[in-house]
Amino acid sequence: MYIRYGFRGRPRPSQPQAGDIVSVRNSLLAILTMGPAYGFQLHGELATRTAGRRTVNVGQIYSTLERLVRQGSVEAAGSTEDGLPLYRLTGGGHAEALAWLRETDSDSGADWTDMLDRVLIASSLPHVDLAPLLAGYRSAWQLRLNRGGDASGRPWESGQERLATEAQLVQARAALAWLDTVAAVADRPPAEEEPGLHRQLSLQRPKRGRRPGTSS
Amino acid sequence: MYIRYGFRGRPRPSQPQAGDIVSVRNSLLAILTMGPAYGFQLHGELATRTAGRRTVNVGQIYSTLERLVRQGSVEAAGSTEDGLPLYRLTGGGHAEALAWLRETDSDSGADWTDMLDRVLIASSLPHVDLAPLLAGYRSAWQLRLNRGGDASGRPWESGQERLATEAQLVQARAALAWLDTVAAVADRPPAEEEPGLHRQLSLQRPKRGRRPGTSS
Repeated sequence: MYIRYGFRGRPRPSQPQAGDIVSVRNSLLAILTMGPAYGFQLHGELATRTAGRRTVNVGQIYSTLERLVRQGSVEAAGSTEDGLPLYRLTGGGHAEALAWLRETDSDSGADWTDMLDRVLIASSLPHVDLAPLLAGYRSAWQLRLNRGGDASGRPWESGQERLATEAQLVQARAALAWLDTVAAVADRPPAEEEPGLHRQLSLQRPKRGRRPGTSS
Repeated sequence: MYIRYGFRGRPRPSQPQAGDIVSVRNSLLAILTMGPAYGFQLHGELATRTAGRRTVNVGQIYSTLERLVRQGSVEAAGSTEDGLPLYRLTGGGHAEALAWLRETDSDSGADWTDMLDRVLIASSLPHVDLAPLLAGYRSAWQLRLNRGGDASGRPWESGQERLATEAQLVQARAALAWLDTVAAVADRPPAEEEPGLHRQLSLQRPKRGRRPGTSS
């Protein structure tokens, strides 16, 4: 109920949650490392680069941008020729974005949802080296796997503890398998007609006079 | 960052989120199917029956109980001999709890966190037949696995879509493996000195005059 994974053209509507808001915020900073962008563009970039996992409405994009401006991570950068306001990273915002794209904490890093969002976004950015991020998640999940293994060797306090530990073990193994797949895909050039991981900023325009403030 | 799994005596503090609140609410209703209980007792039951996944403070237990009373799912049921107020399910609350312990929707049911909470709680309740719940989750994850397999057969729209689909496949396989483990553990009697899954309500008392309203 809490985590939604959109499947091919089936993004699921979801209630925004604390973790989602953090993820949208950091994802926007990460996308802005590609250069200045307007709100509607960021809306599209976020959806595409997360494969539909983070489909938020344009209004939420603008409210997040406003919060980022207040926090000093983003600033106004003029407007496009047709009058769409542009946003760019400040020095602090740039550093924050690069840190998010590179580092994960080995203790809190074993988080499936966070891993998916961050790795998908990072994999789409041509200037980002995926290796440190993948290594960070790999060691976080390996740590969980080791702890689970240690726990299995001791007597269980309850049947539930045993089941919960088993769940952590299978999830950690799944995460490590996925990280291997990501590394393999990232390391070899895409086959002919196969879409690659890297994406430039698209120049998608709002339709029918959709402008900040009038968006849904 | 958003989902925390406590490991043996290392419950992680976490920000409550929308999904967490739903889960705590439903878990309390489920535990109350065992009979009337007081707040401090429910606090302990929730932590034990979820193997430390849902360790919320006593104040949150009381505020959830108050909300459940306002919603008509729970009502006051006198107090213990030493004056701790007891809560019990109303008829509506009982039906709601049993539905939560039995049914999951095949479309939204493929949710790791929700599955863990619900299956762990349900597995601890002697009067609950786990089979329908396990079957519901199994078909939800199988559906996701099938959709992912279908998606793999079509050309990818983006590299990210490919990675996201692969993540869903490994996660679905992990979930199905875990559900098999749960079924196996539930189906056979526990070995000697091995803790079983079923738990009666414990009679843990608040320490040092801890009473509703004074709790942290």
